Amino acid sequence: MGRRSRDTRSNRGGSGIRQLPWRDIVNEYPRLEVLSADQVEAIHLASMDLLENQGMRVLHEGARSLLAKAGASVNNDSQMVRFDRAMVLEQVARAPAEFTLHARNPARNFRVGGKHLAFTSVGGPAYCSDLDRGRRRGRFEDACDYLRLVQSLDIIHQEGGGAFEPIELPAETRHLDLYLSQIRLLDKNWQPVALGGERARDAIAMARIALGWSEDELAEKPALFAIINTNSPLQLDIPMAEGLIEMASAGQAVCVTPFTLAGAMAPVTLAGTLAQQNAEALAGITLTQVVRPGAPAIYGAFTSNVDMRSGSPAFGTPEYAKAAQASGQLARRYGLPFRSSSVTSSNVVDAQSTYESAMSLWAAITGGANIIVHAAGWLEGGLTASFEKLVVDAEMLQMMAEYLRPIEVTPETLALDAIAEAGPGGHFFGVQHTMSRYQTAFYQPFLSDRRNFESWQEAGAEDAQHRANRIWKSLLENYQQPTLDPAIDEALADYVARRKAGSPAQ
Amino acid sequence: MGRRSRDTRSNRGGSGIRQLPWRDIVNEYPRLEVLSADQVEAIHLASMDLLENQGMRVLHEGARSLLAKAGASVNNDSQMVRFDRAMVLEQVARAPAEFTLHARNPARNFRVGGKHLAFTSVGGPAYCSDLDRGRRRGRFEDACDYLRLVQSLDIIHQEGGGAFEPIELPAETRHLDLYLSQIRLLDKNWQPVALGGERARDAIAMARIALGWSEDELAEKPALFAIINTNSPLQLDIPMAEGLIEMASAGQAVCVTPFTLAGAMAPVTLAGTLAQQNAEALAGITLTQVVRPGAPAIYGAFTSNVDMRSGSPAFGTPEYAKAAQASGQLARRYGLPFRSSSVTSSNVVDAQSTYESAMSLWAAITGGANIIVHAAGWLEGGLTASFEKLVVDAEMLQMMAEYLRPIEVTPETLALDAIAEAGPGGHFFGVQHTMSRYQTAFYQPFLSDRRNFESWQEAGAEDAQHRANRIWKSLLENYQQPTLDPAIDEALADYVARRKAGSPAQ
Repeated sequence: MGRRSRDTRSNRGGSGIRQLPWRDIVNEYPRLEVLSADQVEAIHLASMDLLENQGMRVLHEGARSLLAKAGASVNNDSQMVRFDRAMVLEQVARAPAEFTLHARNPARNFRVGGKHLAFTSVGGPAYCSDLDRGRRRGRFEDACDYLRLVQSLDIIHQEGGGAFEPIELPAETRHLDLYLSQIRLLDKNWQPVALGGERARDAIAMARIALGWSEDELAEKPALFAIINTNSPLQLDIPMAEGLIEMASAGQAVCVTPFTLAGAMAPVTLAGTLAQQNAEALAGITLTQVVRPGAPAIYGAFTSNVDMRSGSPAFGTPEYAKAAQASGQLARRYGLPFRSSSVTSSNVVDAQSTYESAMSLWAAITGGANIIVHAAGWLEGGLTASFEKLVVDAEMLQMMAEYLRPIEVTPETLALDAIAEAGPGGHFFGVQHTMSRYQTAFYQPFLSDRRNFESWQEAGAEDAQHRANRIWKSLLENYQQPTLDPAIDEALADYVARRKAGSPAQ
Repeated sequence: MGRRSRDTRSNRGGSGIRQLPWRDIVNEYPRLEVLSADQVEAIHLASMDLLENQGMRVLHEGARSLLAKAGASVNNDSQMVRFDRAMVLEQVARAPAEFTLHARNPARNFRVGGKHLAFTSVGGPAYCSDLDRGRRRGRFEDACDYLRLVQSLDIIHQEGGGAFEPIELPAETRHLDLYLSQIRLLDKNWQPVALGGERARDAIAMARIALGWSEDELAEKPALFAIINTNSPLQLDIPMAEGLIEMASAGQAVCVTPFTLAGAMAPVTLAGTLAQQNAEALAGITLTQVVRPGAPAIYGAFTSNVDMRSGSPAFGTPEYAKAAQASGQLARRYGLPFRSSSVTSSNVVDAQSTYESAMSLWAAITGGANIIVHAAGWLEGGLTASFEKLVVDAEMLQMMAEYLRPIEVTPETLALDAIAEAGPGGHFFGVQHTMSRYQTAFYQPFLSDRRNFESWQEAGAEDAQHRANRIWKSLLENYQQPTLDPAIDEALADYVARRKAGSPAQ
């Protein structure tokens, strides 16, 4: 094997590391199904029973009114909405099985649904951390650096809605600064913050400016993907309902994700938690279709369990893995794209953070996830976005992407002639079949160190966390901001300035 | 959630840590198949072509003679043996699909094959390592400590044949000291060193003494499981052939495992490597059945790839994962139990060692492995057995065992009444359905730390590696040597003394 191989399957591009090129990942393997068909049906029926007989408490009056018009039974005193199962199934069937999510660089559009798989970076934590500066409240400049890294890592299809809260910015307008930076620093798809109508309208307005699209064009070519969490059990609060309604009205993608923590916000048994998750997800998706038939909607699953000793949430657990795969079965039952996540409870980038993330990642992918949110950078039960974890996870995602390339079986790859040429007890290094293929035959990692112990020790004996630290710094050094039409840039800045000065969201 | 839960699904026993009890793990989930049926057939046919037209070089004259008598075409000058496909398939069909492997404590017997899954600790490295003493040549007392840990961890079904070489003991008789310690310090099944007829005969003799069984009894109730590696490509060397013949003659289990490193000892294409692996594995298994029809034989797979830059072996790679799952499909095609492994190239117990081990572990289990060798403790491409990695892996194995417990779907677990009791926006902590189940509802880890950042930091901010260090020390402190009849102990010591004094192996 030569030292100076030219790997046509990876590229250094401008990023400073050798990484896999941007890829539409297609999962051609069969889905791993942990439930029998009868069990899926039993969970389905239990969730229909919940929707018909218990119902959801919907705190937003407008949402209740929309649902009532569509045939739901609404009690405005109790705020309870009961859904007939035929209505739910009819509405849910209107959501597309597959759609394209658009980016300002069309080469960064990606498909959601079917056999497609996309990866999203972490979104939403309160803190950030890296080896040099420790765990801390992040500032805006740190958050922008995180965006630059997400842009630089080609395995990440979508930015996750701001990796952490920039604490020095006013809470009411922080999302405007975030959106502006997401558009400027990324040419990828980015997630908006859909908590409340105003933040949702700002995202839609700014996406339209960035893309130069009319309302109709944006509705035809969705560019926003909003996470809407139900307030489990069986409740939809006002800010989430507002975000859902704004996004669905505009034809943007809504990912309804109940946060069903078994033993706390959901039953202590996984079957019950899945029934409740299913009821909540379908209720939310029903609302999206009532708002705008055919709007893209995603079945989000985030079922985990509490730690039995402390009552605190636990992530990347065996229960989480089973629930993720079962959720994929449920999503496919309704022909909906399926969202899962990669998660851990660990406070540090160590073996635990890795085996918990690997547990959730493997379960999500074998379970047929179409989009994996928090796929890179999540630490500490979602309280922290880690710079080193981002790099570790990106390596794991690349490995999964390569794992998903099916084995090619042809007379050439079966290689009987090459085996004859090497001969019994021989070796394949010098065989022509090897020589003509070795540069692109195998995945080449950017983080994993495969040197022998002595070479590794001489080079400083760095573990993966410390190598990841060097890698994100190198990525930042080599980061190149994608070009943006100055007129668009100015229009976006104007919008933000006007909004900060008190103009209403458009 | 009370702080003093009594978890009936885990036990402290004498081990000093709360762990899952010994368990017969049954994988009820469907197997994840990365090859189509046509692709499996194409690989099968290519391997039959290899066996018929190229053949294996078998260096051991007795093995060639046995194969010739069974109908193979043998050339004693070239040492080449060509196998008719009908003969191979007929012989391989004689091996049992499933069997019990026996231990001196019958409660530690386990099943190999079918839906059963067993885990084996690392075997064979040259070095050992721990955080206190670093990476080093291990001594006999260290190796005995490793055996004590393997005995203490209930998730490990089988000891892997000595975790590392005790460097101060003479190489010719080292295996005798190992066997004596395996029998004394463990009541679990242990792997012999089957390199050469003498070591194999010693293992059989000492197993019989330990169990008090006749030759026939041992053949009826196999207690030894020997790894036999082919010398890829397409060669079987003399010590391995001797080991295979001795073990199969005695009716003991032989796991034929080609070490097919794509790009070095096998083609650079996975299809070709799998065809070669299949040919070598089936040739070895054919020999076991020629020696003793019906002797337990296991399809071993260890296909990985070289690192493209250095030419050195790489482990836990995407290619490794695909090959493991494809190998499961091949093994099942012949009705053979399937052995896989959990491996990494990392030199340290970090994120890399964990994601590579997780990659191989997930692939092995979803691919239907019946026994996973090196499932706990392997580091540095198999050159080092790590004390901390043993603990990290044991936690991962426990998580997989819990993942494999299917979700129970019944009216009680669907919990509609509990959901009604909690009510919309309510919580489940105080609900009777939770109270009566929470102590046993979820997996409770012994290594993972789920405390919040502040509590974790106050407690010393230990990462998983450092916690694992404390855990193995606690296990050693609490280790209790299983009782052994003094007469048996004496007879074993006598055997070892006589062999060291020059008596032949029995």
